[in-house]
Amino acid sequence: MKIAVLAGDGIGPEVTREAVGVIERLAIPGLEMTDALVGGVAYKATGHPLPPETLEIARASDGILFGAVGDPDCDSLERHLRPEQAILGLRKALTLFANLRPAKVFAGLEGHSALRPEVAGAIDLVIVRELNGDVYFGEKGFRTAANGDREGYDVMSYSDSEVRRIAHVAFRTAMGRARRLCSVDKANVLETSQLWRDVVIEVAQEYPEVALEHMYVDNAAMQLVRAPGKFDVVLTGNLFGDILSDQASMCVGSIGLLASASLGERETAHGTFGLYEPIHGSAPDIAGKGLANPMATILSAAMLLRHSLGLAAEADRIEAAVAKTLADGILGGDLGGSAGTTEIGDAVLARL
Amino acid sequence: MKIAVLAGDGIGPEVTREAVGVIERLAIPGLEMTDALVGGVAYKATGHPLPPETLEIARASDGILFGAVGDPDCDSLERHLRPEQAILGLRKALTLFANLRPAKVFAGLEGHSALRPEVAGAIDLVIVRELNGDVYFGEKGFRTAANGDREGYDVMSYSDSEVRRIAHVAFRTAMGRARRLCSVDKANVLETSQLWRDVVIEVAQEYPEVALEHMYVDNAAMQLVRAPGKFDVVLTGNLFGDILSDQASMCVGSIGLLASASLGERETAHGTFGLYEPIHGSAPDIAGKGLANPMATILSAAMLLRHSLGLAAEADRIEAAVAKTLADGILGGDLGGSAGTTEIGDAVLARL
Ligand SMILES: CC(C)[C@H](C(=O)O)[C@@H](O)C(=O)O
Ligand SMILES: CC(C)[C@H](C(=O)O)[C@@H](O)C(=O)O
Repeated sequence: MKIAVLAGDGIGPEVTREAVGVIERLAIPGLEMTDALVGGVAYKATGHPLPPETLEIARASDGILFGAVGDPDCDSLERHLRPEQAILGLRKALTLFANLRPAKVFAGLEGHSALRPEVAGAIDLVIVRELNGDVYFGEKGFRTAANGDREGYDVMSYSDSEVRRIAHVAFRTAMGRARRLCSVDKANVLETSQLWRDVVIEVAQEYPEVALEHMYVDNAAMQLVRAPGKFDVVLTGNLFGDILSDQASMCVGSIGLLASASLGERETAHGTFGLYEPIHGSAPDIAGKGLANPMATILSAAMLLRHSLGLAAEADRIEAAVAKTLADGILGGDLGGSAGTTEIGDAVLARL
Repeated sequence: MKIAVLAGDGIGPEVTREAVGVIERLAIPGLEMTDALVGGVAYKATGHPLPPETLEIARASDGILFGAVGDPDCDSLERHLRPEQAILGLRKALTLFANLRPAKVFAGLEGHSALRPEVAGAIDLVIVRELNGDVYFGEKGFRTAANGDREGYDVMSYSDSEVRRIAHVAFRTAMGRARRLCSVDKANVLETSQLWRDVVIEVAQEYPEVALEHMYVDNAAMQLVRAPGKFDVVLTGNLFGDILSDQASMCVGSIGLLASASLGERETAHGTFGLYEPIHGSAPDIAGKGLANPMATILSAAMLLRHSLGLAAEADRIEAAVAKTLADGILGGDLGGSAGTTEIGDAVLARL
């Protein structure tokens, strides 16, 4: 069993270190962890944010533990050399098409949301975001109109098979939960969305127990504020998913606690190949100061054990230790507490 | 002075009736109001959601008072015949490129937001949304890939001149407020956004007093939940503006109270040509029941008088009467009250 550890930029290395420490403490027989460079740090060392060696190590693994990428030093580089291209490149090269982002308030932390506690406390949803298509990966560039006007353009598109593949993931996810699926699109304006909606309706025939609803993205952004507790599984494309999943995680209020899985098509010996990362970014402003909350990365490691390595019991142990740590009031600065990165990591270790 | 009244579908006619009543009560000399069909009701009567006569009446006016379009009966029509095409068609044909959506909590109504009252109470922002470009109006359609896979596509783009035009509106708006402008894009992924950002930076040179910041759209969706009070003016494109402006209005909590202006390039005798509409939709579920809150349409009428007819004093009178009505506790069902459409309209009339 192999885990590729891609710590990346900013607070990535410090939060990843704690998550690796937690996995090591479980002393899983036959488990190997291999570090590789990614993001701005990889660009600085090799001239590329996603060096071929890194891609090879990632590909040879059963699951990838990912920290964060993003480095203000790289903002003026050409697009293909920027740190963000590393995560986009991994998603595409490894066909990590299904991004799962659970959003749920940890018991006792309802008061940390900007939403009223009774609204935040009701949140228990999963966003299923397509990750390999949409305007992210279409043709893009600059062109000059006849009148000399410069123009930037990006082609948005989805194909039948791309929508079908992610729709099945979403319906299966709904089957394991409250069996309600809300598909979000902008079919009143976009043909990409019209195709999306048509295919989702087709796939729905195979899941008669799931109650399917369609919602325009502008309305979804409203409902995620007004009554986020009404959602169970939300299915959406790459761009809308980027926006709505960040919005949903902020509704929960504890962005330092939220993990994500990006699953591929390949089956590993005991699960599905995937990449696991905290939903927060590289936070350059607090990098290297020992202030970052490693919980989201530790929870991402638990997701990796569960989904890619089939180690559900070990994943449960980690999640229970995290819940216990929070219940004991050991909170990072993001939650108004004063515990630092290693203090939180050690507290989780002590409760494993 | 001419106002075109396009009441449209669903609750459109009943809320528009109250707003027209308020304008009539002001007995403005030389003011003419002309009704015209739009949306599903226009399609049913003429076979087109935006009949040529309607476009002519709109074009010949100084400002358009718009109710709402959207009718579930029309959902299965071809795209170009659906009610939504009427509002998109008006925006494009009349070059209504600048959508202004103020979001501010009315005194005493902080408790109606899903956000904590101290968070909601701090909201005082304007979203400036570009309305004539982006993926809304690019080439779009369906195509079949070599392998037979159906695909839907929509081209997103912005040109230098389109961005420049809306950026000036946003900077001027910021100059009249707290002089802070946040431009929202997704420049880490989209070339359309890269051009957007480059042009906004250029235009900023002409407004040295305005503090300009750039934010990715996913982060903006988070900050609008976490700390919406930090925004002053938000500038963004058509698609992101659709999502964020609805999100912001729901943060305020009283969607039945929010008006919007869509301004064009043409100057009228006393202002700028524009279309004014409540941000809520046609709400078919409560249409015809006398339950809809007409406040947002009445406030849209006030914006029309101010921006297109130069009647600032009259606009102030309407806004004061609305504030007084709310302060007197006359609230519609959307705010947990029991006042119906005509009762609210009459209450505003009584306080004019
Ligand atoms: C870094 C960026 C390219 C990325 C995205 O837009 O997908 C991020 O926002 C995310 O959601 O993982
Ligand atoms: C009805 C629809 C086409 C429209 C839009 O997306 O612009 C609406 O949502 C709006 O914001 O005015």
